[in-house]
Amino acid sequence: MSVTPPHRSVRVDLGDRSYDILIGPGLIARAGAEIAARRPQVRCAVITDTNVASAHLGALTASLEKAGIDAEPLVLEPGEKTKCFDELIRVCDHTLGARLERGDVVLALGGGVIGDLAGFAAGIVRRGMRFIQVPTSLLAQVDSSVGGKTGINVSHGKNLIGVFHQPDLVLADTDVLDSLPLREFRAGYAEMAKYGLIDRPDFFAWLEANWREVFSGGEARIHAIAKSCQAKADVVAADERESGARALLNLGHTFGHALEAATGYDGKRLVHGEGVAIGMVLAHQFSARMNLASPDDADRVERHLKEVGLPTRMSDIEGGLPGTDILMTHIAQDKKVQRGALTFILTHGVGRSFIADDVPQDEVFRFLEDKRAS
Amino acid sequence: MSVTPPHRSVRVDLGDRSYDILIGPGLIARAGAEIAARRPQVRCAVITDTNVASAHLGALTASLEKAGIDAEPLVLEPGEKTKCFDELIRVCDHTLGARLERGDVVLALGGGVIGDLAGFAAGIVRRGMRFIQVPTSLLAQVDSSVGGKTGINVSHGKNLIGVFHQPDLVLADTDVLDSLPLREFRAGYAEMAKYGLIDRPDFFAWLEANWREVFSGGEARIHAIAKSCQAKADVVAADERESGARALLNLGHTFGHALEAATGYDGKRLVHGEGVAIGMVLAHQFSARMNLASPDDADRVERHLKEVGLPTRMSDIEGGLPGTDILMTHIAQDKKVQRGALTFILTHGVGRSFIADDVPQDEVFRFLEDKRAS
Ligand SMILES: NC(=O)c1ccc[n+]([C@@H]2O[C@H](COP(=O)([O-])OP(=O)(O)OC[C@H]3O[C@@H](n4cnc5c(N)ncnc54)[C@H](O)[C@@H]3O)[C@@H](O)[C@H]2O)c1
Ligand SMILES: NC(=O)c1ccc[n+]([C@@H]2O[C@H](COP(=O)([O-])OP(=O)(O)OC[C@H]3O[C@@H](n4cnc5c(N)ncnc54)[C@H](O)[C@@H]3O)[C@@H](O)[C@H]2O)c1
Ligand SMILES: [Zn+2]
Ligand SMILES: [Zn+2]
Repeated sequence: MSVTPPHRSVRVDLGDRSYDILIGPGLIARAGAEIAARRPQVRCAVITDTNVASAHLGALTASLEKAGIDAEPLVLEPGEKTKCFDELIRVCDHTLGARLERGDVVLALGGGVIGDLAGFAAGIVRRGMRFIQVPTSLLAQVDSSVGGKTGINVSHGKNLIGVFHQPDLVLADTDVLDSLPLREFRAGYAEMAKYGLIDRPDFFAWLEANWREVFSGGEARIHAIAKSCQAKADVVAADERESGARALLNLGHTFGHALEAATGYDGKRLVHGEGVAIGMVLAHQFSARMNLASPDDADRVERHLKEVGLPTRMSDIEGGLPGTDILMTHIAQDKKVQRGALTFILTHGVGRSFIADDVPQDEVFRFLEDKRAS
Repeated sequence: MSVTPPHRSVRVDLGDRSYDILIGPGLIARAGAEIAARRPQVRCAVITDTNVASAHLGALTASLEKAGIDAEPLVLEPGEKTKCFDELIRVCDHTLGARLERGDVVLALGGGVIGDLAGFAAGIVRRGMRFIQVPTSLLAQVDSSVGGKTGINVSHGKNLIGVFHQPDLVLADTDVLDSLPLREFRAGYAEMAKYGLIDRPDFFAWLEANWREVFSGGEARIHAIAKSCQAKADVVAADERESGARALLNLGHTFGHALEAATGYDGKRLVHGEGVAIGMVLAHQFSARMNLASPDDADRVERHLKEVGLPTRMSDIEGGLPGTDILMTHIAQDKKVQRGALTFILTHGVGRSFIADDVPQDEVFRFLEDKRAS
């Protein structure tokens, strides 16, 4: 009797740091078996947040324990503020206190916040432990759990402290997304659309036609997540440490990060993927203004993101924004700055993004001044 | 007119992470020129401690500024306690506050404490900046500045949090050692002797004959430092991430770390190299007790280290030690533990060390009980 696996598998090709992303339903229940098959007798520190814990921690620890894997859970507060030095110290302390050794595992069960924080801890405890991602938000499944970027925020800016530390395995259980608030699902969808906008125009067109099925679940959702993971895996394999092409993944992110900073990383006002959605529209509009792309493409992008329910304009952010000079400071402090000149991801149109250095600061300033009013 | 460089050069071979160690007099005065030749227009955060700053910071910053390199100094308290999360955060904050970019440099001017702390910060700020070591203690010149191990101490133990982050350049100015307290020079000498004890019996014999010249300076000192750097570079090139042979560098360190922990990392009672000296004698004595080596070798090692003025017995530590059960806890928490079995570096004699796993805990316990009285 032969059984086909119930999930898709995407390989991230990084030599001796290669790993698999499994995508499909029921993977939390299979987590223990999948991990034990790869690393028998391993022990796990399971890092999660209260939202995810109440819905999925029990199922995960049951699955681990059934496979003979000792699980030591640590449940943190949800939200972007958890990505800070204090919580990093807590995760390190928990992992050491549980007497985990170098070959043992830090497992992130949660969204990008938990993944980035736990991954950073895994990268520095004992100078690098094993790391497994069980992403539970759409954003984490299609983006943050793949590629090994980890980090925390500090007063100088977002994600300014961290390491590259690749996971050993990613288990993206597509069922868990049903407990995700719709707003968070939409935010993750923005990153999914991003892959189309960077260099896969066909995928963007497919999403325009099929986004409702992606939201409702089933095969279309699994397909779209696998496509997105493949897109990210390709970029990461070509440029693990973001010395070149990987920067394309920052489409919409320089503007987006500035908006997140300007709203004090207050998830009630703006979550990461929403900032990216507005940022991607701005990147297309700015490209049009610089005569690099047609304004029709910017309109098309805005139309689609708006249709799925994402914010697309700065004026969509409740509570107002600080002055444009403050936004510019956040943009300049963003880490994609080289020797003072601004580096942006701009585009020649849908699916035709490129890295532009030497973007004139004053052009960006005037553009933002004009746009914030609209 | 041809000029021979006034220094030796040792290459650490790590593919695209390879780098040079320059060893010789006057290198602080040449630092600006050496750095500018490799990375023109770079900016530097210079991390140091008050002891080193008063003797050498002025000379370094003058040299950097003469070469057109902007230097942003941060002067910390000296001592092992500085290797902690709070100071790590300070160094990160200083570096970001100075608006250094990814291609800019964190420069460590100091002993192993400053090197380990600043190197860790360099490894995590913007997920990895350039890093230059200007080691000023003998221990840092022959050991800690080479090989890319960085880290801090936490309540669970020493160096349990950190990253591997290779420097881009190491400048070991042999003149600066003249301001080093004799006790610290001796401590560094213990690590130098270690290379002979691991696998270079001729070098150990050379040190027995020439140690006075090494202490007094000049050619013998430069030679011994270059020999030591070469020994460390060879091990690091063969096993960058300590998955195998690099563990040999821990000769004397499992015992040594336990003694440091047991004295609360109080440098007045015991500095790192002194712990290593006692630890190396213990490793040789324990090997003899296990019938792996002749007791004559242990005596020879003890005689030499004692002759240069290093402590060689637990009873040499002022203020007494906690119970052997506490020492054993520190030994078991040491990161060289695999699945509960103790891994030690033992020896078949001078220059014939090897990695022993499965060392019985109770044998170690009884050995320590016997030895602490002697
Ligand atoms: N490392 C990378 O490459 C990378 C890439 C993109 C984004 N990020 C980071 O990811 C973070 C954003 O990720 P996120 O949007 O997943 O944020 P998040 O982790 O805060 O998750 C969003 C919210 O959804 C909740 N949640 C998650 N899964 C759930 C589930 N299955 N059921 C119910 N609630 C659930 C969380 O508790 C949280 O309240 C940001 O910090 C961003 O910087 C990192
Ligand atoms: N990263 C590694 O591979 C590695 C290897 C061995 C040791 N270490 C670490 O190194 C540390 C010990 O290094 P250390 O012995 O250099 O300690 P240290 O940095 O504390 O220096 C010892 C003392 O000498 C002073 N000093 C240093 N240079 C001086 C100079 N030229 N003139 C006057 N005073 C000077 C310092 O201020 C300090 O008081 C420990 O934390 C240990 O864990 C790391
Ligand atoms: Zn993103
Ligand atoms: Zn040492």
